[in-house]
Amino acid sequence: MILEVAILDVKPSQEAAFERDFATASAYISGVAGYLSHELQRCVEKKSRYILLVHWETLEAHTEGFRKSPQYSEWKKLLHHYYDPFPSVEHYSPVYEEKG
Amino acid sequence: MILEVAILDVKPSQEAAFERDFATASAYISGVAGYLSHELQRCVEKKSRYILLVHWETLEAHTEGFRKSPQYSEWKKLLHHYYDPFPSVEHYSPVYEEKG
Repeated sequence: MILEVAILDVKPSQEAAFERDFATASAYISGVAGYLSHELQRCVEKKSRYILLVHWETLEAHTEGFRKSPQYSEWKKLLHHYYDPFPSVEHYSPVYEEKG
Repeated sequence: MILEVAILDVKPSQEAAFERDFATASAYISGVAGYLSHELQRCVEKKSRYILLVHWETLEAHTEGFRKSPQYSEWKKLLHHYYDPFPSVEHYSPVYEEKG
């Protein structure tokens, strides 16, 4: 399992529109092969900052499957214009996990 | 629910020791009031980078409860010397979540 992580800085005052369009765009990622789950969370300390976390079965499900799909064009069209600066994306794999 | 996020850059060649001490240190966070779960994941693109994700019931469970506890002193002692640079920590709250 691979965790995609992106810190998203949204242009000031566009947060509500971004959140609305994120919900719409979600349909374009959740149908892709190898997608497991995703979540958007908003930063407490910096209100125009968000974190996107997406769980994929494999790295390639994201980098090849999603990014080369027609769905990704729709996702980009809906969301990429909100970001400033344009985010970098990293992938992580599990080392340790515990639940209370 | 609050998600604590820290990107951790570990000093090169200390990754194995860090992972071992992280497992030990986990006992000091998981017993704290308001702790829900935590995970450590390792970056695919940059091998000395990790992400720490901790779910707390409230912001204060982390910033007041854990950081002012004796357990935090032990956590710091075990882990903080591995980081370069010293990480900044942010907190996030849920906006959108979906599972496939």
